[in-house]
Amino acid sequence: MPASGANWIAGNASVEGGETFTSVNPRHKTAGDVQFHNATSDEIHRAANAARDAFLETRLYSAARLAEFLNMVAHEVETLGDELITTAEWETGLGVSRLTGERARTTGQLRAFAALLREGSYVEAIIDRAQLERQPAPRPDIRRMLVPLGPVAVFSASNFPFAFAVAGGDSTSAWSAGCPVIVKGHPGHPATSELFAQAIYRAIEAAEFPKGYFSLLQGNSIEVGQMVVQHPLIEAVGFTGSLRGGRALFDTASRRPKPIPVYAEMGSVNPVVILQRALLSRPDTLADGLVNSATLGAGQFCTNPGVVFVVESPESRAFIVDVTEKMAGKEAGVLLNAQVEQGLQNAVNHTVHKPMVKLLTGGHFEKNAGYCYPNTVLQTTGAAFIADTELQQEHFGAVILFVLCQSQDELVQALECLEGNLTATVHAESDDLELAGPIFDRLRDKVGRLLWNGFPTGVEVVYAQQHGGPYPATTAPATTSVGMTAIKRFMRPVAFQNMPDSLLPDALKDSNPLGILRIVDNFYTRDPLNQR
Amino acid sequence: MPASGANWIAGNASVEGGETFTSVNPRHKTAGDVQFHNATSDEIHRAANAARDAFLETRLYSAARLAEFLNMVAHEVETLGDELITTAEWETGLGVSRLTGERARTTGQLRAFAALLREGSYVEAIIDRAQLERQPAPRPDIRRMLVPLGPVAVFSASNFPFAFAVAGGDSTSAWSAGCPVIVKGHPGHPATSELFAQAIYRAIEAAEFPKGYFSLLQGNSIEVGQMVVQHPLIEAVGFTGSLRGGRALFDTASRRPKPIPVYAEMGSVNPVVILQRALLSRPDTLADGLVNSATLGAGQFCTNPGVVFVVESPESRAFIVDVTEKMAGKEAGVLLNAQVEQGLQNAVNHTVHKPMVKLLTGGHFEKNAGYCYPNTVLQTTGAAFIADTELQQEHFGAVILFVLCQSQDELVQALECLEGNLTATVHAESDDLELAGPIFDRLRDKVGRLLWNGFPTGVEVVYAQQHGGPYPATTAPATTSVGMTAIKRFMRPVAFQNMPDSLLPDALKDSNPLGILRIVDNFYTRDPLNQR
Repeated sequence: MPASGANWIAGNASVEGGETFTSVNPRHKTAGDVQFHNATSDEIHRAANAARDAFLETRLYSAARLAEFLNMVAHEVETLGDELITTAEWETGLGVSRLTGERARTTGQLRAFAALLREGSYVEAIIDRAQLERQPAPRPDIRRMLVPLGPVAVFSASNFPFAFAVAGGDSTSAWSAGCPVIVKGHPGHPATSELFAQAIYRAIEAAEFPKGYFSLLQGNSIEVGQMVVQHPLIEAVGFTGSLRGGRALFDTASRRPKPIPVYAEMGSVNPVVILQRALLSRPDTLADGLVNSATLGAGQFCTNPGVVFVVESPESRAFIVDVTEKMAGKEAGVLLNAQVEQGLQNAVNHTVHKPMVKLLTGGHFEKNAGYCYPNTVLQTTGAAFIADTELQQEHFGAVILFVLCQSQDELVQALECLEGNLTATVHAESDDLELAGPIFDRLRDKVGRLLWNGFPTGVEVVYAQQHGGPYPATTAPATTSVGMTAIKRFMRPVAFQNMPDSLLPDALKDSNPLGILRIVDNFYTRDPLNQR
Repeated sequence: MPASGANWIAGNASVEGGETFTSVNPRHKTAGDVQFHNATSDEIHRAANAARDAFLETRLYSAARLAEFLNMVAHEVETLGDELITTAEWETGLGVSRLTGERARTTGQLRAFAALLREGSYVEAIIDRAQLERQPAPRPDIRRMLVPLGPVAVFSASNFPFAFAVAGGDSTSAWSAGCPVIVKGHPGHPATSELFAQAIYRAIEAAEFPKGYFSLLQGNSIEVGQMVVQHPLIEAVGFTGSLRGGRALFDTASRRPKPIPVYAEMGSVNPVVILQRALLSRPDTLADGLVNSATLGAGQFCTNPGVVFVVESPESRAFIVDVTEKMAGKEAGVLLNAQVEQGLQNAVNHTVHKPMVKLLTGGHFEKNAGYCYPNTVLQTTGAAFIADTELQQEHFGAVILFVLCQSQDELVQALECLEGNLTATVHAESDDLELAGPIFDRLRDKVGRLLWNGFPTGVEVVYAQQHGGPYPATTAPATTSVGMTAIKRFMRPVAFQNMPDSLLPDALKDSNPLGILRIVDNFYTRDPLNQR
């Protein structure tokens, strides 16, 4: 079924609004023939009401039932087959191989959350039993667990049309919690969004979930997103995108009569530190690895290695030359859309015109058949980096800024000045541990993930993943948008005091019918209460 | 040692500012003779810098070392002896018995967190080991744990001069995390705050912690608090107090160039539902329990039962008469200060003048030797409560608003209209479970703690406690300010990718030297990695 251009409100197509837009193929700058309708305030209201009604049911669903739904979504996404890949490739230019991998990551993520739910301990059950003899008053029985927060608004990213989009990490973790999801689709890939909506509704039907568990709103205007975040029935927001976009939603949510959390994953320059011994022992591997990571997906990754710190030496000079040649020699990738092209051009122009910045390759825009920008390498000094926080601005594309420091001390000082980032990497040799230890200690406060001798692109969907970091990397540094603990963003604890066993959720009942791990009177156990 | 009136910046007395205030004895409205100095912008800056410097050390301290410090603080608070109780009683009028109990709660809380640290699993270690054979690329080793957030600002509450103040729940949980604390003392009990500061510095000295791990700022102006929250080195804020005060700090923190989380525990009316069978079977016990809970500490508890829902019947009518007589017959307690007296007077006046509200007792202010307001009972209808959210305004004092509903259905409708609260209570009989179940289900979305046949005052400091709730009860419904999980507010996760074992924190090392519970490849275990 080709895209209809409609918004999808609790299973029903809706085309109320007069404002429309089309997707644009980034390889040829040609417009698609389907008109997508910006969601209206009334459509948003209906989606929110349907989500609230759905929540009254799904908030009491068992983890097993929620898991079944996630597995069905994964299955239905796979059932979309080649059409999904073809559509997304046309809308994003990311390429069939990358998109095929991203689809596997997306369905794998859905199934990993299903497994988390079936294991069940994620509700963090804690039980403190009554002490009836305590003086001066008996201690009551108190039992606590996580429950779902309520309807969630999710904003799709441009650069991950599957894994950070309609059925991506935010939606999957919200659904896992039992929260209905309203997705504001990214205007860069609306037909892809609509295909996902079809798959999700098929899963909703098969699982006999309320239709309001999912709605898809289309829109290419800031207003649509702002109206969604302002809606009083929305309880939390997930977002992946630019600092400007994320901050705008955060500000709106914070100013509501009832403020709500915004989990925005935004820009990052992902600092990489290369120590001298690593440059000595494996300059070629490092250069190849860096160039591959920086140009992957035309550099349009939030974990793209954008700033590289080295100490001045013949080897670091040679390394910069080598990386520059390799970047120059590599064909520039297709960018997602005109906004990304324009934004990259503006960002590089701004940096290049700073007095202490040298342009080594790229940096000049030439009109092309597709959206495009040459691979770019810039160089500045440690002192300049320390003096000017604007050098920490993200260039969303294949751009590397080398920071050439006069000494190891200056390098550490430069790292001290870093703002929040998603990742930081140190390349070193095994006999560099004494040097690397203090560097990691300083970097730890700046980021969500630290890497040793790796490259930050490629975010594994595993339990331990931390895809987050201090502002401006995110608006909520205590949370992650990838990995199993992402579910915690959409839950909150409730305590039950002296509650009859029959009124308690299964997770807190004496008999522990779910067999989950619980903290009982300060000890971790899976035992039922009466057998302890 | 009597109070000096100084601010205490990393162990040093500082009296830079010209603005001063005194404490006032609420029983006699007499001013103390010590002048306390409002902290200046420069003093705040020094405190923040000292906290940052301290953090560079304490963020790497072992849990055992942090635990030792907490135990020392508890010991030093006890060593303050009678002077602490006498001083706090003079400043707050809360009474020796209550304050003695609150001191035990406060030292007990410090020791409970020390025990949590010694057990060690609170860092939520998660390990996903490498899969070197995975295709198309090997999976890296990723290990994640919680680390401390950074310097924390804590705002003392007026109504708990020990347990929600200088060494109260917020400070204790921030210190437990490894975060330095800057306390903005409540102007109602500055001498009490200074005594605590002395005890804390003795503990800092004994434990050989950096002095900047704690500073005490005094102030009776809004500006002092605002400047603290605006300081760029502060990473999080803990607050207990009014909705207006908490929201103002939240707004300031959200508007910072780098926004930070504000954990504000604010107002609550703590709805109580009494079902007909409970009224039939034990009206006297219920009336006594309700009156005791509502008048405890002159009603100045955030968990004070302020709104009581009953269905119209001869028994509920009689119950309201009985409660009214008991409230009228009970001597009014001393209020904390002039602001509380004035605030209560304004709030009750506002409610009483609504057309559908009947004043049953109290409600008129008479000037007294001490700060005081008569115990008050108000009554309205279910329909009026549904129509007017202003009836959910907190009256911070001994005030009960009865909501007399025409039917069970109207009662449930009224509950649907509730804003966020810290607690909700249902009184029922064991054969009421079918009626009570759906009521609890609806109340669950509104509160942090649900009680069966109890009274909400008296918040147990146990692992499972949840002292929080949806806005306006708090600004961060996914967190608690009491109970062991309060520590999570001041930590954030960091992931380490392919890190050499020697660079990993102990909690993540292969050998699991701390013996903590970890999630390894999706399974909970305390085993070292090589023996699995």
